[in-house]
Amino acid sequence: MARSLHLNLFIHGRGHHEASWRHPGATRLPLTDIRYYQQLAQIAEKGLFDSIFLADALAIADGIGHVARSGLEPITTLSAVATVTDKIGLIGTASTTYTEPYNLARQFASLDHISNGRAGWNIVTSWVQGAAPNYGDDTQVEHAERYERAHEFLDIVSKLWDSWADDAVIDDPDSGVFADESRITPIRHRGKHHGVAGPLNLPRSPQGRPVYIQAGSSETGRRFAARYAEAVFTAHLEKKTAVDFYADIKGQAAGFGRSRDEILILPGISATIGSTEAEAKRLEQELHEATHPSVGLQRLSNRFGGHDFSHLSLDAKLSVDDFPEPSTVQGAQSRAGVILSIVKRDKPTLRQLLHSLAGARGHFTIAGTPEQIADTIEDWFKTGAADGFNVMPPVLPLLLETFIQEVVPILQKRGLFRTAYEGSTLREHYGLARPESQYFGTNPPAKLTA
Amino acid sequence: MARSLHLNLFIHGRGHHEASWRHPGATRLPLTDIRYYQQLAQIAEKGLFDSIFLADALAIADGIGHVARSGLEPITTLSAVATVTDKIGLIGTASTTYTEPYNLARQFASLDHISNGRAGWNIVTSWVQGAAPNYGDDTQVEHAERYERAHEFLDIVSKLWDSWADDAVIDDPDSGVFADESRITPIRHRGKHHGVAGPLNLPRSPQGRPVYIQAGSSETGRRFAARYAEAVFTAHLEKKTAVDFYADIKGQAAGFGRSRDEILILPGISATIGSTEAEAKRLEQELHEATHPSVGLQRLSNRFGGHDFSHLSLDAKLSVDDFPEPSTVQGAQSRAGVILSIVKRDKPTLRQLLHSLAGARGHFTIAGTPEQIADTIEDWFKTGAADGFNVMPPVLPLLLETFIQEVVPILQKRGLFRTAYEGSTLREHYGLARPESQYFGTNPPAKLTA
Repeated sequence: MARSLHLNLFIHGRGHHEASWRHPGATRLPLTDIRYYQQLAQIAEKGLFDSIFLADALAIADGIGHVARSGLEPITTLSAVATVTDKIGLIGTASTTYTEPYNLARQFASLDHISNGRAGWNIVTSWVQGAAPNYGDDTQVEHAERYERAHEFLDIVSKLWDSWADDAVIDDPDSGVFADESRITPIRHRGKHHGVAGPLNLPRSPQGRPVYIQAGSSETGRRFAARYAEAVFTAHLEKKTAVDFYADIKGQAAGFGRSRDEILILPGISATIGSTEAEAKRLEQELHEATHPSVGLQRLSNRFGGHDFSHLSLDAKLSVDDFPEPSTVQGAQSRAGVILSIVKRDKPTLRQLLHSLAGARGHFTIAGTPEQIADTIEDWFKTGAADGFNVMPPVLPLLLETFIQEVVPILQKRGLFRTAYEGSTLREHYGLARPESQYFGTNPPAKLTA
Repeated sequence: MARSLHLNLFIHGRGHHEASWRHPGATRLPLTDIRYYQQLAQIAEKGLFDSIFLADALAIADGIGHVARSGLEPITTLSAVATVTDKIGLIGTASTTYTEPYNLARQFASLDHISNGRAGWNIVTSWVQGAAPNYGDDTQVEHAERYERAHEFLDIVSKLWDSWADDAVIDDPDSGVFADESRITPIRHRGKHHGVAGPLNLPRSPQGRPVYIQAGSSETGRRFAARYAEAVFTAHLEKKTAVDFYADIKGQAAGFGRSRDEILILPGISATIGSTEAEAKRLEQELHEATHPSVGLQRLSNRFGGHDFSHLSLDAKLSVDDFPEPSTVQGAQSRAGVILSIVKRDKPTLRQLLHSLAGARGHFTIAGTPEQIADTIEDWFKTGAADGFNVMPPVLPLLLETFIQEVVPILQKRGLFRTAYEGSTLREHYGLARPESQYFGTNPPAKLTA
């Protein structure tokens, strides 16, 4: 079978461009209206996407005065989206630093049941500056410490998800036996950060457990991804770093005894699509000019540990000396590094830097025709930069609809993308095996539908 | 306007009777199948019920080998139910002991948005014996300590829910102003158990905040309910204690400066309905005989702090000396007291006690004709025992359908129950005012739909 591209829709505000919400192609539904998320998922499902993805921040968005970022919580949203879709995967973000493992395990297992096997968990350690003060910490938990917690957390929740054998539920009214208690086990975890006795209080879910997604790109984050992740969302400004990242992660995964196919690399792509390249560039520039500098400045400051950039002139050229060392930054170190590499490469003014980050916050952006965009996707896919893409439309739903109407058919014609769903779970779309229970091994899954 | 009865459907397994799942009138859908919960909510909505309610336990159910109790997590379930219903209130249980306040506030605010104002929160302090070991505690948090935490927790989440003024979202693409930041406030909470800076990361929800429900009936629990609860679920074996409870809670609420109408008292009623009383009793007895003693014994043990009853003969008469003192029991003290009062009153054998608790675990049970059940409801409603009922069908969906087809029309004919929904939020069904923001006072709620 030919290798096939994977496409995930990353839903963010009214589109990934900071000024998306001011564009007439953006929805006018409030960001708290569930119909908006349901409609986007239905559009993406019609386009045969593998999955949709909701990010999360655990704190109010930067620059809320001038940017439309005030959405619903991911798990509740995805549960409501599950009931109006059939096939598309549903990936939600949740934090290993600020959630109880028993609560998270129950909610994702429930989502996997509710969606009949479509749940994915984007595992984050919560780097957002504003999160810690909402969870009792004055200062952010240290980078290394957060990953140490994350390892323990993964260990616990994977045990909880395996604590019922697939055949534990008997449910036989005649004999009066509901469950075979010998096929349900406590997990008896006692670690540095958590003690969890188990078992989970609901049966093993259709996928065994949610698909593990990871998006941290620091050295520690990469090692974590290589060990656990089944798909990786990653931000690259150009193909070169994407190729390096791809080789690094696949190599490290091999070091953990994993096959290259067990971990998909999905770089972000934010495509502004026009019938000519000039039209696409015009739309992109229009969006840049509709941004408000305060939004980008606040986000930039947060990316650099609260460093203040407001004394700099918007129209003077930047130098790396205007920035703190990325290694001193608590938070998403890799994102800070990406920003510095733009400064080194392009020597932009502050305004130009803010514009270039307004598109997709350090992810790859492209403005061009459907053919140009399909060419780029094919190139990255065929030359070791990507197994697929995290599709980040600058304006939603407009540029998702255009992507599906104009770009997807080209990819299909080239034999790169499915023309129908073959499976019905997220694992099946991603070509991943269903994991065995670490306690009970393989068993034919219990018949879960009446 | 005449005072009108309130009805809530309490969804529990395949019905409240422990042996419900063995009855042909019970659903055969797995308890992990969302369609089951959606169907029950739709039946209850057709029956014009105020609300549905999901309990929760944070640990595997007692006696899982012989009882069908392995449901989905409440918040995810209610989000999925919200999208297939329009009017009915959606009440979920969540713990103030084992949840982070910021997480809980976001999820309930999201549920309130997703359902257009139908969310209710059953506030529990997590008395279940098995919960603590799933959250790092070797021993259960003490009763008094749990309520102390609950007070602080309520204070925090109510502030988070009030942290956006109703008119904070401007969402004006032309001016580029998304939110009025002067209408969003941090909460700066620093207490004994939590520090939460705020604000919440999403706008104020349609009801302002979810309706507060409470079900603890100990002295501390009653005081807590009188102060905060807008509806109280309560268990009584007979009308007399229900009348005392009703007067006590309404009186205590007045002591907190609240009006009697701001707190609804909803005792549980588990009605086995037959076309004759004899037929109803026969059905009840059939269900009793289909129970497995191990289930009831394990639950009884847990109700009395792990006390072992298994050395007692099933068919010998019980005495109060077979039980520990309720005041020494950590957990739901009031439930232990209710059980002892049955022992004193009826002098049952252990088997008889287990049968009487198998029906609805200490809630009021009745087996009779639709007229007899309507008479009881009217009597309790009109003589100071209830503002409505927490309807606990012994077998689901069978005895819910019968209740709606046979009992509800009698209540309507007597002018006791609505014949159409008048409002569309849970607050409106319950006759409760929408709370003002403690920071921003009254404001016309922002227009939240496009």
